[in-house]
Amino acid sequence: MVSNKDLISIRDLSREDIEHILKAAKDIDENPAKYSNLLSGKILATLFFEPSTRTMLSFQSAMSRLGGKTIGFSDSKTTSTAKGETLADTIRMVESYSDIIAIRHPHEGSARLAAEYSKIPVINAGDGTNQHPTQTLLDLYTIKKKLGKIDGLKIALIGDLKYGRTVHSLLNALSKYENVKIKLIAPDTLQMPKEIIEDSKGPEIETGESIDGALKGMDVAYVTRIQKERFPDLEEYESVKGKYRITREMVEAAGKKLMLMHPLPRVDEIEPDVDTLEQAKYFEEAKNGVPIRMAIIAMLLGKIK
Amino acid sequence: MVSNKDLISIRDLSREDIEHILKAAKDIDENPAKYSNLLSGKILATLFFEPSTRTMLSFQSAMSRLGGKTIGFSDSKTTSTAKGETLADTIRMVESYSDIIAIRHPHEGSARLAAEYSKIPVINAGDGTNQHPTQTLLDLYTIKKKLGKIDGLKIALIGDLKYGRTVHSLLNALSKYENVKIKLIAPDTLQMPKEIIEDSKGPEIETGESIDGALKGMDVAYVTRIQKERFPDLEEYESVKGKYRITREMVEAAGKKLMLMHPLPRVDEIEPDVDTLEQAKYFEEAKNGVPIRMAIIAMLLGKIK
Amino acid sequence: MVSNKDLISIRDLSREDIEHILKAAKDIDENPAKYSNLLSGKILATLFFEPSTRTMLSFQSAMSRLGGKTIGFSDSKTTSTAKGETLADTIRMVESYSDIIAIRHPHEGSARLAAEYSKIPVINAGDGTNQHPTQTLLDLYTIKKKLGKIDGLKIALIGDLKYGRTVHSLLNALSKYENVKIKLIAPDTLQMPKEIIEDSKGPEIETGESIDGALKGMDVAYVTRIQKERFPDLEEYESVKGKYRITREMVEAAGKKLMLMHPLPRVDEIEPDVDTLEQAKYFEEAKNGVPIRMAIIAMLLGKIK
Repeated sequence: MVSNKDLISIRDLSREDIEHILKAAKDIDENPAKYSNLLSGKILATLFFEPSTRTMLSFQSAMSRLGGKTIGFSDSKTTSTAKGETLADTIRMVESYSDIIAIRHPHEGSARLAAEYSKIPVINAGDGTNQHPTQTLLDLYTIKKKLGKIDGLKIALIGDLKYGRTVHSLLNALSKYENVKIKLIAPDTLQMPKEIIEDSKGPEIETGESIDGALKGMDVAYVTRIQKERFPDLEEYESVKGKYRITREMVEAAGKKLMLMHPLPRVDEIEPDVDTLEQAKYFEEAKNGVPIRMAIIAMLLGKIK
Repeated sequence: MVSNKDLISIRDLSREDIEHILKAAKDIDENPAKYSNLLSGKILATLFFEPSTRTMLSFQSAMSRLGGKTIGFSDSKTTSTAKGETLADTIRMVESYSDIIAIRHPHEGSARLAAEYSKIPVINAGDGTNQHPTQTLLDLYTIKKKLGKIDGLKIALIGDLKYGRTVHSLLNALSKYENVKIKLIAPDTLQMPKEIIEDSKGPEIETGESIDGALKGMDVAYVTRIQKERFPDLEEYESVKGKYRITREMVEAAGKKLMLMHPLPRVDEIEPDVDTLEQAKYFEEAKNGVPIRMAIIAMLLGKIK
Repeated sequence: MVSNKDLISIRDLSREDIEHILKAAKDIDENPAKYSNLLSGKILATLFFEPSTRTMLSFQSAMSRLGGKTIGFSDSKTTSTAKGETLADTIRMVESYSDIIAIRHPHEGSARLAAEYSKIPVINAGDGTNQHPTQTLLDLYTIKKKLGKIDGLKIALIGDLKYGRTVHSLLNALSKYENVKIKLIAPDTLQMPKEIIEDSKGPEIETGESIDGALKGMDVAYVTRIQKERFPDLEEYESVKGKYRITREMVEAAGKKLMLMHPLPRVDEIEPDVDTLEQAKYFEEAKNGVPIRMAIIAMLLGKIK
């Protein structure tokens, strides 16, 4: 990425690229004042063709913390897309109005398409069930910040591994590290797609359906929401919902070593009384979205080498 | 409030707290340039779970006038709340992205709940039919700016006193002052709830149903909108609507001393030809929302002592 | 405009006023750094009672590029208008919160009405099928930037000339120049309204229904979208849609001299393979919206003489 102008997929990044971004985010995290006017006069366009408050506010916050400004929309119903404008035309308009674009879109491949038409840098803020690279980078940042390394860790991915875009990106990113051991815990109908596993060669991968004892011995358990809106069939949703619910007992049984993560929002897949356990790191994870996105925006604009 | 980190209810404030805020607002009003960079680098999150353009724009304007930035949403349909996220989780996300929160929510008690979970200051921008403390403070500021005092005034509250949150807060605030005389003019079905009156001991309170002659001798007449959206029953709404309509004749008959207020938006409870009378102070009242909110934000962030 | 406080209609501007704005925009375009803090501390309110992403983002970008801030809304469903507030009251609220207003409204005459009530400058960002003066100014700016002049040009207006507000304003503006020759190419049911033509005395005007050969000899061809949402009758829309579609062959046959413009968004009235021809200037046109709006905002606030 450091040499490219866009951030579309975690697959485009080498381990070195990733480490470089994590290092920049760490410096921002530790010395925020150094960066508070770095992007003064710059404009980020947040083009959210589907709503995602968390990601949008995180990008807006990141741009503000860098001294820049944000323009954009959060609902495609009020855009010229509703009048029949193509994505290519929207991008060629917005690139005149801003210095960098963050795009969220319900269709796979749309961020890549946007980047092809755009003369200014494009960041993929989630395209359908495909990629969400800034989420993966903040996940990696959170792990490394807490555990000091990623090589050699034992990591369980739990919940909806089929439709959950964050776990696809994360698995791919982890495959760039050494001696990582992965457990994929999901109902059969929601297991990690084969093509994602084949594309993530490297880690030792074990799959399973039962959450009982699955946390034991793990360094990281990464839980994802069973996303109702990704299910074509409501009955299928009802049958799996709640099966992968993390309780306080499970987490305590797994021991102090465990680090419990979740991309949020959570519905009921982690019980609220888990929040106060020291293993629970998902709110810190969300917080880490700001320095990571600050690093990415500043690097793509050439303000951090 | 000065010592607390949140502003949730006018009931939490002593008379001294209120006077302290009004004084700070006055200084801001008179010396805006002094404050124009006070919150440079700070971020206000405006979390509007129900729409309120006036209040939101007023908060955004206040934050801008202090040199700060705003992030947020104005419609809960496009938030992760729609995906089933709890308010507590939303708050723990947003506190990572901002320095202070203004929350508007349809449910009573939600602002208090938000404050309990938040590590950063929370301002209640209206929670259901409960409280709207920044509105009350700007109302008090408007009265004091014009009349020089609040003690000893004769004040009529007119219209929907049952569902109107602003008059609840205002009555409570007035009870902290000396020798205030209050008239509560409303149809029986919309009179001020008993528990609010009991909670506002101090002023001499008189209730009545008829608006005829009610303005006479008053220092302030505070009119509220008969809010259609608060009525479970449309017929009830139709039967009372228009009964409490303020005309030019009424205001002229009441004399020059009267100060006519309204929290806005107004529908037809004050006739448009009243606007040009010197007694009409509701647009000045709206304007006063900016210095008052500037004072509150700056005080909660510790930038005004 | 230079002496007025508002920009409501292109008809209010003399040729000298227009030239003055174009000149200011040119200086901004060439020396952006000179203007980057001009409006520091100022607030633009963008009141969009109907959605228009392009225009809104362009205004927000312009204000940001001048160092100012923006507040506003993009959907009247979430405003107090939905509660029954009049436009006059909304304006008298917003003028307290901002320094200048850009208003977009579905009803003709609404921008003029807003200006009458407002103490701060008002810019019409489109009122129904009536006027959209900032679009016209950026169109003129685009022509002059490319061709060096407007006097003596041959200009074809093509497509929906009945409902298309931009072509109404543009025709009126062109009538202020010397020796302009205009072709109005549209289906009979969508021809330029007689009152607009009568109001635009000066240019030699020729009307026609066929697009065949219509581009030949033209300096500028200005194409507008057949706007589905303006048609009361869907059948009428279907019958004319596509008849006025610009192809690569047509543009190449017209020669290098031609400059092809479109206010955007485009649906299918210009084929995508036209985009790469050097005659296609519509994306540059969109880009020019920023310096033009910067010039207008700064002039109305008295910061450019």
